Amino acid sequence: MRKNYLLTPGPTPLPPQVCGAMARPIIHHRTPQFQAELKEAEEGLKYVFQTVNDVYMFASSGTGAMEAAVVNLLSPGDTVVTVEAGKFGERWTDICKAYGIICEVIRVPWGQAVNPADIAAKIEASGNKVKAVFTTLCETSTGVTHDIRAIGSVVKDTPAVLVVDAISGLGAIPLATDAWSCDVVVSGSQKGLMLPPGLGFISVSAKAWKLAGNSKCPRYYFDLTKAKKALEKNDTAYTPAITLIIALNEALRIMKQDTMEKVFARHKKMADAVRAAVAAMGLKLLAADASSDVVTAVKLPDGIDGEKLVKTMRDTYGVTIAGGQDALKGKLVRIAHMGYIEEFDIIAGISCLEKVLAQMGYGFILGAGVKAAEEVFLK
Amino acid sequence: MRKNYLLTPGPTPLPPQVCGAMARPIIHHRTPQFQAELKEAEEGLKYVFQTVNDVYMFASSGTGAMEAAVVNLLSPGDTVVTVEAGKFGERWTDICKAYGIICEVIRVPWGQAVNPADIAAKIEASGNKVKAVFTTLCETSTGVTHDIRAIGSVVKDTPAVLVVDAISGLGAIPLATDAWSCDVVVSGSQKGLMLPPGLGFISVSAKAWKLAGNSKCPRYYFDLTKAKKALEKNDTAYTPAITLIIALNEALRIMKQDTMEKVFARHKKMADAVRAAVAAMGLKLLAADASSDVVTAVKLPDGIDGEKLVKTMRDTYGVTIAGGQDALKGKLVRIAHMGYIEEFDIIAGISCLEKVLAQMGYGFILGAGVKAAEEVFLK
Repeated sequence: MRKNYLLTPGPTPLPPQVCGAMARPIIHHRTPQFQAELKEAEEGLKYVFQTVNDVYMFASSGTGAMEAAVVNLLSPGDTVVTVEAGKFGERWTDICKAYGIICEVIRVPWGQAVNPADIAAKIEASGNKVKAVFTTLCETSTGVTHDIRAIGSVVKDTPAVLVVDAISGLGAIPLATDAWSCDVVVSGSQKGLMLPPGLGFISVSAKAWKLAGNSKCPRYYFDLTKAKKALEKNDTAYTPAITLIIALNEALRIMKQDTMEKVFARHKKMADAVRAAVAAMGLKLLAADASSDVVTAVKLPDGIDGEKLVKTMRDTYGVTIAGGQDALKGKLVRIAHMGYIEEFDIIAGISCLEKVLAQMGYGFILGAGVKAAEEVFLK
Repeated sequence: MRKNYLLTPGPTPLPPQVCGAMARPIIHHRTPQFQAELKEAEEGLKYVFQTVNDVYMFASSGTGAMEAAVVNLLSPGDTVVTVEAGKFGERWTDICKAYGIICEVIRVPWGQAVNPADIAAKIEASGNKVKAVFTTLCETSTGVTHDIRAIGSVVKDTPAVLVVDAISGLGAIPLATDAWSCDVVVSGSQKGLMLPPGLGFISVSAKAWKLAGNSKCPRYYFDLTKAKKALEKNDTAYTPAITLIIALNEALRIMKQDTMEKVFARHKKMADAVRAAVAAMGLKLLAADASSDVVTAVKLPDGIDGEKLVKTMRDTYGVTIAGGQDALKGKLVRIAHMGYIEEFDIIAGISCLEKVLAQMGYGFILGAGVKAAEEVFLK
């Protein structure tokens, strides 16, 4: 017997309703039966995205939807701003460069949020040549939430289109796509939406469609014009990930019933508990001022090997959390509190972290982390 | 109560082992547990593809894997041969054109197979300028199997790389990737592999890798070099469709246990039965000489509305078959006998076809189709 507890920033655990839907006999995608599912999913996604615009679905990971944003909006030689404040911000630059797009990069130290004024300055310095600004809602590699609302208010009066990677974050922390002037929002299925990976999402504003009209990047599978035409007939351009879309409706029903307000409050409380727990254990957050309610990145004390810590928690005790990435490998743990996770999952995760840190010789009062988390949850 | 019977050329019904795997709690993809699944899937795919080369997996539909073939092999301005003998052959031309690749198109009437000599002639006429030949194993829109073995023997001694769309066909009818000199074979999950849609596959030969080395098409998500580097570390470049890969191993176990020989024999017998049944009902095949063992396209008599026939079978009786596409809309039905389908599923499908044709006033001896199918199965 080895029970698994999953506290990773994607995939997140699946509600039993979702697991049940995944096991159903498959239906054909060109049928009224599937069209009803597609329509329901579309409406539910608009609720979660908080947009009146279409949300298109691709059978792909979130990275595929990121590529869709780049290739449908831009042409080789165009200038854009990318915000690199972690591994996933860097991905925007990488995708743009693969298509010959010139990136004005704003580099932010890992663990900090971008200053919206820096984005405004970059756009202005370019003489308003910047066609799009590529940002991240929650940077999974650092656990930082960027102030998308403030960025939106800075970008909306410029010619640039605001593109937000909300792969981690959508359905976990507030993102008001329309109210915050986010022109393109990209997401994936295996995070706040509580599904297995395999679905990419993208919403597109009227301002973004206007820019897309001039795009000369080559594309086929991720062509949004084809996705739009298909959706007008309540259809998909290519064979959709049928099972995941049906399971998505199960997840959306849970979210609609809870309401987004309650979903966000749950995530905030779990994040508060994790932050209180690690502080009580004498550990520091990577993101001092902007630590997200999605995933908490915790700096490890000198002498504690983060890779060994994560491996022992997972392989000996069945509790999977994430380690640090790239330059932070071995120096960090990332504890996710996103998706189908509730307070006692957090308690389990903190308890296991305490156990393995104690075994590794780190000095702290055993139980202090769990006690601090309990105090938050009791409030 | 409305029981559904699925006889469509993708998705095909799912084995209970696959449904069960789809419902399991999700695991994280950067773990030894998932790496073991990935390794098993890779080995099983090599068995089904009959190749020693790597087979890469994308979270995408089969069309995504088709795009991967184009963008990784070629550069804008390159010349290729595409074989258009139906809707999916035309897709090769569409993808190539989206990337500025010049297509020497071989147009074959819908319902016929391409003559391999025509491919040889096109390559020679170009002065061996043709970099790749894009073909289809089973053209789903017409139910025609192309002679890939003969095409392989024609292409292998030229500088061109042979690319085969085996989305329909792989795991249902013979395709010896290496022995038949197929450099790139593309497939999808929802056909012979008995899975939901959402996984694309692509195998790449040494000759194809050499061509890929000069490719200048822009790409990111479908970049095979990144997929190769990741697979060398038993990993994937981006978040994989975890659930589908675990379910794939269930399907591969069934196929390995049965052996490909038996799998192919089962498909052939079911196709023979369908062909005998429709002949006994006085109906004609679209593909007189090259009708595939994957899907049988049946021409409808004048006065029988194919769209109404398919709709009645599906919405009144729960039996889903496919209609004609594009120019053949309303004039054709396509009965699939692929994947998790056995003889009594075929009997059910033929019986429902008989019932609705009789109701629509078509004159034939009721039971004649089922009897003819039974005679084939009894042999």
